[in-house]
Amino acid sequence: MLTRRDLMPALAAAVALGTVGAARPSAAQTARPLASWNEGPAKQRLLDFIHATTDRASAQFVPPEGRIATFDQDGTLWVEHPIYTQVVYCLERVPAVVAKRPELKQAEPFRTVLSGDRAAIAKLSLRDLETILAATLTGMTIEAFQAEVAEWLAHARHPRWGRPYTDLVYQPMLEVMELFRAGGYRTYIVTGGGQDFVRVYSQRVYGIPPEQVVGSAGGTRFMMEGEGRPVLIKEPRLLLNDDHAGKPEGIHLIIGRRPRAAFGNSGGDQEMLEYTTLNAGARLGMLVLHDDAMREYAYGPARGLPPTHVGTFGAALDAEATRRGWTIISMKRDWRRIFPFDT
Amino acid sequence: MLTRRDLMPALAAAVALGTVGAARPSAAQTARPLASWNEGPAKQRLLDFIHATTDRASAQFVPPEGRIATFDQDGTLWVEHPIYTQVVYCLERVPAVVAKRPELKQAEPFRTVLSGDRAAIAKLSLRDLETILAATLTGMTIEAFQAEVAEWLAHARHPRWGRPYTDLVYQPMLEVMELFRAGGYRTYIVTGGGQDFVRVYSQRVYGIPPEQVVGSAGGTRFMMEGEGRPVLIKEPRLLLNDDHAGKPEGIHLIIGRRPRAAFGNSGGDQEMLEYTTLNAGARLGMLVLHDDAMREYAYGPARGLPPTHVGTFGAALDAEATRRGWTIISMKRDWRRIFPFDT
Repeated sequence: MLTRRDLMPALAAAVALGTVGAARPSAAQTARPLASWNEGPAKQRLLDFIHATTDRASAQFVPPEGRIATFDQDGTLWVEHPIYTQVVYCLERVPAVVAKRPELKQAEPFRTVLSGDRAAIAKLSLRDLETILAATLTGMTIEAFQAEVAEWLAHARHPRWGRPYTDLVYQPMLEVMELFRAGGYRTYIVTGGGQDFVRVYSQRVYGIPPEQVVGSAGGTRFMMEGEGRPVLIKEPRLLLNDDHAGKPEGIHLIIGRRPRAAFGNSGGDQEMLEYTTLNAGARLGMLVLHDDAMREYAYGPARGLPPTHVGTFGAALDAEATRRGWTIISMKRDWRRIFPFDT
Repeated sequence: MLTRRDLMPALAAAVALGTVGAARPSAAQTARPLASWNEGPAKQRLLDFIHATTDRASAQFVPPEGRIATFDQDGTLWVEHPIYTQVVYCLERVPAVVAKRPELKQAEPFRTVLSGDRAAIAKLSLRDLETILAATLTGMTIEAFQAEVAEWLAHARHPRWGRPYTDLVYQPMLEVMELFRAGGYRTYIVTGGGQDFVRVYSQRVYGIPPEQVVGSAGGTRFMMEGEGRPVLIKEPRLLLNDDHAGKPEGIHLIIGRRPRAAFGNSGGDQEMLEYTTLNAGARLGMLVLHDDAMREYAYGPARGLPPTHVGTFGAALDAEATRRGWTIISMKRDWRRIFPFDT
């Protein structure tokens, strides 16, 4: 489930999506650490932090059990524009849902979504969108949901690159996660997106197992399907809205420790970075700034970048970053390469 | 937080608690696996299961990432009679809470608890008990709560043994957890007790880190305490009631995988064992039966044991165990030794 406040802008940004091309995501294999990073303060800060916290001789040494690093997903690990991938999933799942429940075909908001009329879709209300989310994300078993997501991911394509969404991960961030894991850190995803959604591909795409995915989560209902087949049914009852203040809450609920390092890219990550960095000992907060319209996207509105409602990086977050000593990662300056498929 | 349905019987069972003696819990160091187990079908089943799932040549081999074993706590890993340890904590914390908030001194139910009048305490309503739980488990930061629990655990004593509650863990179950971990399993506690409560001592007592404790959990509120000190305040908003059907729900929420083995001792564990064992491949379900009044306690009411409201093992659970092929662990027959401090 996505943040309420993100839903309407995300919907407004929705565009029909192309379906060309296909590619397997490449694993992040690098000989040197951070090979896709240009030399500069961001890269240096990462290397210094790992050294300071893992060298036994360092005054800032962190015992292995305390080595926790958390990563936002949308806009931090993979592309979130023009619209969050999970929202695309929900809209594109509507035909399949209606095929199973034909009574919905003439009912709003499904009828509008099926019409393909983009102007009409963009005008759907928040309540409409929540109805779509409930119909596409709940009411089935965990296993059925996971199979549906896996099937969609195999065929859906991003409109700009014509590639699977799981190809559109940032190679430099894969290298950061590798660097941390090589240093004995456990890497967690902490996302406003759905926990069950991200768990489908987190191991394959990021090398992160399901138990290290913290995300927005709904309740589940235990039941026996037939004799002796226990299942959990996904319910539209929100347990955790894992965005803004929900991120520290989710981190405490699932991990129970304060992270040592946290990575984000938008206002929804501020509380996670505060929770992580405003503490004794070595702490690291970093924010990805989307300032590369050529290779990816450029949006802010901080630093004169175009405004957006999807992954907003505003002046207030920029000021907080300065105040708290967080490092801004400039995609344009700091990253030699954006995607694994870039040459 | 404990199960609503358990609260009143637990309160009714409350007794004033002695405060003699002191001892450090001994770590479970065993040369042979399951050294405190008598030879018999339960011990053999444990050894066979580990062999079958960790030997690469076995048809039932389980890859390391899928090796998850879950353990109920109260009555499965440590003593739950005459009353759940966390309920004792809540009642014994009342004086400290009232000292900080003197306006509660004359207010019910605090006044009754402070009176020490056992008959009156036993008559408190469910609403009264929930008021006590809210006052003692919520309203403070995570760190403050953890410090309070640690302080209490250091001084509180079980009335029968005159020892710290954390001494009263079952040596044979410590050995089971060691056996599983030696076989590459990750061991999780899945308890109806409070997640934040158990996380205080899980590493020290069971060798289980906080991120592997699944328990009943309330929401938390993120706030800044002064300038630049982010904290989470524990709130009386229940996110997860981790008992009965809540156990599979909690397992999915926190772990996101189905366990291969699950251990429990009462009706509240039935759904967890079903969720774990009614699946393809090697699966193990085991239930501890408290049939040893001499060395610990005897309660059922299954198999002619005395009835209880704290950790009930009824005829229905017994029948389900037979039907599903779960193994009953008889404390009396299967365990050579109960506690680490036994000689």
